[in-house]
Amino acid sequence: MEPASSADGPRTTGRSTLRDVAKLAGVSIATASKALNNQPQVRAETRAKVIQAAEQLSFSPNTLAQGLITQRSGTVGLLTSDLEGRFSIPILMGAEDAFGSDQTSVFLCDARGDTLRERHHLRALLSRRVDGLIVVGARPDARPSLGRDLPVPVIYAYSPSDDPADLSLVTDNVGGGRLAVDHLIRHGRRRIAHISGDPSYGAAQDRARGALDRLGEEGLPLAGDQVWFGAWSEAWGRGATRMLLQRDPDIDAIFAGSDEIARGVLDVLHQEKLAVPTQVAVIGFDNWNILAVNARPPLTTIDMNLEALGRLAAQRLFSAIDGTLGSGVETVAPRLITRESTAPLD
Amino acid sequence: MEPASSADGPRTTGRSTLRDVAKLAGVSIATASKALNNQPQVRAETRAKVIQAAEQLSFSPNTLAQGLITQRSGTVGLLTSDLEGRFSIPILMGAEDAFGSDQTSVFLCDARGDTLRERHHLRALLSRRVDGLIVVGARPDARPSLGRDLPVPVIYAYSPSDDPADLSLVTDNVGGGRLAVDHLIRHGRRRIAHISGDPSYGAAQDRARGALDRLGEEGLPLAGDQVWFGAWSEAWGRGATRMLLQRDPDIDAIFAGSDEIARGVLDVLHQEKLAVPTQVAVIGFDNWNILAVNARPPLTTIDMNLEALGRLAAQRLFSAIDGTLGSGVETVAPRLITRESTAPLD
Repeated sequence: MEPASSADGPRTTGRSTLRDVAKLAGVSIATASKALNNQPQVRAETRAKVIQAAEQLSFSPNTLAQGLITQRSGTVGLLTSDLEGRFSIPILMGAEDAFGSDQTSVFLCDARGDTLRERHHLRALLSRRVDGLIVVGARPDARPSLGRDLPVPVIYAYSPSDDPADLSLVTDNVGGGRLAVDHLIRHGRRRIAHISGDPSYGAAQDRARGALDRLGEEGLPLAGDQVWFGAWSEAWGRGATRMLLQRDPDIDAIFAGSDEIARGVLDVLHQEKLAVPTQVAVIGFDNWNILAVNARPPLTTIDMNLEALGRLAAQRLFSAIDGTLGSGVETVAPRLITRESTAPLD
Repeated sequence: MEPASSADGPRTTGRSTLRDVAKLAGVSIATASKALNNQPQVRAETRAKVIQAAEQLSFSPNTLAQGLITQRSGTVGLLTSDLEGRFSIPILMGAEDAFGSDQTSVFLCDARGDTLRERHHLRALLSRRVDGLIVVGARPDARPSLGRDLPVPVIYAYSPSDDPADLSLVTDNVGGGRLAVDHLIRHGRRRIAHISGDPSYGAAQDRARGALDRLGEEGLPLAGDQVWFGAWSEAWGRGATRMLLQRDPDIDAIFAGSDEIARGVLDVLHQEKLAVPTQVAVIGFDNWNILAVNARPPLTTIDMNLEALGRLAAQRLFSAIDGTLGSGVETVAPRLITRESTAPLD
């Protein structure tokens, strides 16, 4: 079952190979591989030629056989420090889905933010011939690069690398903040407040900036006089809402920087007998199902699109085998999930 | 970095090997390995002899070198269908902790309850020379065995295998139900109700049985006339509490079958102006921090001890290399986590 370490010579079995397909289609092996793996860099015309050649030769894209030729094992390592799996599990799922259920395996290893453990897992994954690595940090701020001398391509997801030569894929948190406030404005809210988490997180600052930008475009002030930064917890959501209501009892919407904070916001609004969404609309951030779907009422929120991010990371890793992995920080657009906590005013 | 596939011959480097240590200590290589890995089956006297020999030879227990000799790679595969990672992440952490941070890597693969995907991951893990497999199902009920012809030992954790020849490690849910009700009784509660999740789950039935057993020993009836089975959700927790309070307004405690249900219970008790815990004590199940710690008030709950379960699974897998893996279903005792939702009546 072990792919040989070198397989450049012609194969002697009767089965047709990717090499045969490429030859018949008149393209390189790399292009044939990309075409059959549905990767985006291949022109539609080329893809059609390759698929026709594969059909003509009854070529079956068996993962291991493919590995024999392209040196790919179809396996990605996911090195995470996200203790609860809350951000890394959707990234893992997206990466697995990049090429279909029987094409890719993602091995998740938990480093818990511990450098020693991370090095140990890194060695373990590399010695298992993963095709590439996705690194997910504990929080969405820059983390140390694993360095430039690794034998496989590495993509930093969710938390960018601190080395601009690395490729990082992150959520567009400024865009997420804009999206949340835009939704509230479109549905008639004018006195919008923002309660968020730990201000040392770049994501907290970015979401606030997007929110303020969108309010500014509309000529609206931020209700409550300030962004209520604090902690990423329900308890802070409750405390901040109490203070906010004392400062500005006339707010008609609260944008919460996370679904946990939003749950605390809802709790205090209920205590204060303020109807949601009739009197005050509430929008969260994360679309963490367990908190958002079961909220009373169900919570409108911003989804970071982590599955799309994982899918994109895996596609890039596999195409990088031919050296096309870029560098810098790329953002993935979040999306709005509408539920009852912001339904329009009657 | 790749360990050779066979390394029975003598090594030619100057470094001392596990074989040298075993020879000097007068024990087998397997015993020396167990002693250095802190496994429980080694007598203290033997362990001391092995450690002394290792020190004398300046033997460094490098994982890969160790793999060369014992054929062990220090790597465990964790095949899970637990979509949120809620049960598998703590099991993964426990398994990694079994032998220290730089001794074991656990590779988690997500099968999502899909047999095709599970087979694919299984092949991927086996071809990467994992020493053993931990299989975690989607729910705590029996799941199909992976079969008896696998080249490495397999332990089923959280969800038992349907083949009694396999070894399964599961939570003692009957014991958990007893523990919850025992805690309430000890603190003076007499009118205890039970709201739980989907009755098709063995865990729901087991927790209810433990609760009823403990009530029976005390000669107490179950308040609310029945176990309120429904769904594993906050929404059901809310609905069931409303019905329960209509049926029996004098309850003084509610045992919820999960922390999610408990959150719904708390929500309705607040709506009904019933003070927690003064008038009604609430206890959950799972100790899922995100829900339990931030509840209002923080939630007393039963912890399934999944990290201990993972630790035990890894220890068994490594000792099974010498053929000592047992069979049948073993239970791990849960533990009580006390917080403010059940503090004693004044």
